[in-house]
Amino acid sequence: MPIQITKLDSTQADFKKSLDALLAFEASTDEAIERAVAGILADVKARGDAAVLEYTNRFDRIPNGGAASMAAFDIPEAELQAALAAIPEAQRNALHIAAQRIRVFHERQKQELNGFTYTEADGTVLGQKVTPLDRVGIYVPGGKAAYPSSVLMNAIPAHVAGVGEITMVVPTPDGVKNQMVLAAAAIAGVTRVITIGGAQAVAALAHGTETIQPVDKIVGPGNAYVAAAKRRVFGIVGIDMIAGPSEILIICDGTTDPDWVAMDLFSQAEHDELAQAILLCPDADYIAKVEASINKLLPAMPRAETIRTSLTDRGALVKVRDMAEACAIANSIAAEHLEISAENPQQWADQIRHAGAMFLGRFSSESLGDYCCGPNHVLPTSRTARFSSPLGVYDFQKRSSIIHVSEAGAQTLGKVAAELAYGEGLQAHARSAELRLK
Amino acid sequence: MPIQITKLDSTQADFKKSLDALLAFEASTDEAIERAVAGILADVKARGDAAVLEYTNRFDRIPNGGAASMAAFDIPEAELQAALAAIPEAQRNALHIAAQRIRVFHERQKQELNGFTYTEADGTVLGQKVTPLDRVGIYVPGGKAAYPSSVLMNAIPAHVAGVGEITMVVPTPDGVKNQMVLAAAAIAGVTRVITIGGAQAVAALAHGTETIQPVDKIVGPGNAYVAAAKRRVFGIVGIDMIAGPSEILIICDGTTDPDWVAMDLFSQAEHDELAQAILLCPDADYIAKVEASINKLLPAMPRAETIRTSLTDRGALVKVRDMAEACAIANSIAAEHLEISAENPQQWADQIRHAGAMFLGRFSSESLGDYCCGPNHVLPTSRTARFSSPLGVYDFQKRSSIIHVSEAGAQTLGKVAAELAYGEGLQAHARSAELRLK
Repeated sequence: MPIQITKLDSTQADFKKSLDALLAFEASTDEAIERAVAGILADVKARGDAAVLEYTNRFDRIPNGGAASMAAFDIPEAELQAALAAIPEAQRNALHIAAQRIRVFHERQKQELNGFTYTEADGTVLGQKVTPLDRVGIYVPGGKAAYPSSVLMNAIPAHVAGVGEITMVVPTPDGVKNQMVLAAAAIAGVTRVITIGGAQAVAALAHGTETIQPVDKIVGPGNAYVAAAKRRVFGIVGIDMIAGPSEILIICDGTTDPDWVAMDLFSQAEHDELAQAILLCPDADYIAKVEASINKLLPAMPRAETIRTSLTDRGALVKVRDMAEACAIANSIAAEHLEISAENPQQWADQIRHAGAMFLGRFSSESLGDYCCGPNHVLPTSRTARFSSPLGVYDFQKRSSIIHVSEAGAQTLGKVAAELAYGEGLQAHARSAELRLK
Repeated sequence: MPIQITKLDSTQADFKKSLDALLAFEASTDEAIERAVAGILADVKARGDAAVLEYTNRFDRIPNGGAASMAAFDIPEAELQAALAAIPEAQRNALHIAAQRIRVFHERQKQELNGFTYTEADGTVLGQKVTPLDRVGIYVPGGKAAYPSSVLMNAIPAHVAGVGEITMVVPTPDGVKNQMVLAAAAIAGVTRVITIGGAQAVAALAHGTETIQPVDKIVGPGNAYVAAAKRRVFGIVGIDMIAGPSEILIICDGTTDPDWVAMDLFSQAEHDELAQAILLCPDADYIAKVEASINKLLPAMPRAETIRTSLTDRGALVKVRDMAEACAIANSIAAEHLEISAENPQQWADQIRHAGAMFLGRFSSESLGDYCCGPNHVLPTSRTARFSSPLGVYDFQKRSSIIHVSEAGAQTLGKVAAELAYGEGLQAHARSAELRLK
């Protein structure tokens, strides 16, 4: 059965409305999950390790009656190294190459942020100091959605930033450990790996327990319980964005092999039935070719049903007037992944203001970026690229202002500050400045 | 009556516990406010201007039966300029000097973040593009806590970042406009000023209405309703941190005039009864002198009662072993404002990893930084300086990754990506990479 994918045309009167309806996604809040998570957080905060142990034994169905103590959940470095040695050589090499490339890119990010100071004529020094976070927690999902690439993408930027301790938590449902995830941890610069997960792991990282030091920030994807827990501990610790469904937007000028574009749409759609894959193209004939490729290639895909549902419910093939209009639409969509599959793609990239990552030219498939180009694959979803950035070294650094006023500087600045402070009715502020006047 | 301020000594056995108790602050969630805010947000989203108009007329007690339309809430540029011309010359000059200095500092921040690209041997180009946000909303409180300095500190970084539209909202309870706030808006680079406030203003900025374009990020302080509304629209738009009570931590080696240190503690305590002012000093005699100064200076302060309550309930004078221990304690407190009032302060500043802003040397009173040194006065509170930064140009910029893989690059990267994608069970990812192989 050919796939029923939404087709839009930017010249239609109701185009904007139809596009908005397609893009609309609101994460629902599940009250039962919220209540459960609030209870787990409070319990772990109050009882520490004992609570983490109980929840982990129960929720992850730890075999043989469960672990007797938290020590059982620690994976020693030797076990990580053994996993790295045990996986197939091709996988090990691929992990090493990916890790190395991710490290090189993120080192460039680190170079950009050095802080600064400058000295004014009267000797006053102003500046900004950049420091890494002390301790970070990396959440890695367990079970079938356990992705070694996410271990690399979350841990390496923290490591490059100079974070002192990187604690990775990963649940092991039924006690089963994913060897490729452990192998990735072995090369990503992780300090400690603990096989706990869910809201109880988030609580342990945020509040600390007898055996787990509290961290300063928690990053990494997780299920609805993990997302709810991260939202609730935000403020006590930093968190990364709560990710929505993954998205790809492809702008194509009609010069790329339609099979390539179809497969790129699949590579997003296979993640999840809620994932969104959209093509913008000025060439109606070419759109028809991509649709034919979709129908030709779909049956052979192992995850065909997920792809079919995703493309049917949330995908679209959009005919646009021209490439410039495609860029304008792309800015309004602010997609997580934007492929510009075109001749001379830079001319169009220059028109893009909002996108998590831009993949330029027909050889830059999103999947290359997901694994091994170097830039991070943790990207802003659901139009948040309008105001937020890929995960990066900067997420594991923060700034402090430096203000060193000279005696001469205090004379001029003191009068200005006092004037404004009196204007705001803050007399102690004014007096504090005036006391420094000669 | 002498003030009853907590005294601690770092050699006490229960010192850490006592300090933690003093620092503990948890913002309570008020269910009535949460419900009210949820209702207002939904109503403004559904009914737009009509809802904003009704709430504003009612909550801000707009005189003469209320405004007839949203147009009445727009302040034309001429009125802002008139306010700037009408305020006393000394105030106008002070605002201009402060704005200019804030602009210079934030221009330095902007210079630091340029993005980058680099080209690999096979022609693959990787990089990071930095772009400003399109539209930002600045929330400015009305009534007695209306601070023109906050207008400058929130709007100027956005303007320096290159944000296209800066919409400032400021409620005018009983229809009364604060002329100094309007004057500050006239010189801060604000695009539009609308006299609305509360959750209804946050809703209008986040969702847009018939007369207000939706923004991409909302920054600025507000009351509990505003804070709750910002939390709820986070994700639809970006927000800055939700600020807790203001804090100052002073490390003094005992060489600064004790009156200066006492007044610096007051300048924080006068903000709010929940504000926190703490002194760390290795010299017991000097601590006694500061306490004497506090008792001497307090009666003459117009906000003496607020200062007294703040210092009594949340302040402390802490005797430490030495300056190095003071720095270690300061790192654990991660204060919003840290004064190092000492000889050769840089040696101690080098030991500080966590602070919103550091004020070095005895001439750098916090109040100078609050108004006119140049660095931002919007700073992380409640220990969040462990993982977050002062408000800055970077809060109004975001990054997009650039990935332009050459045909040659796709050959080597494609094999690595496919290997890892198969390992993760994502076959369309693997095929998408493999289609680019020759």
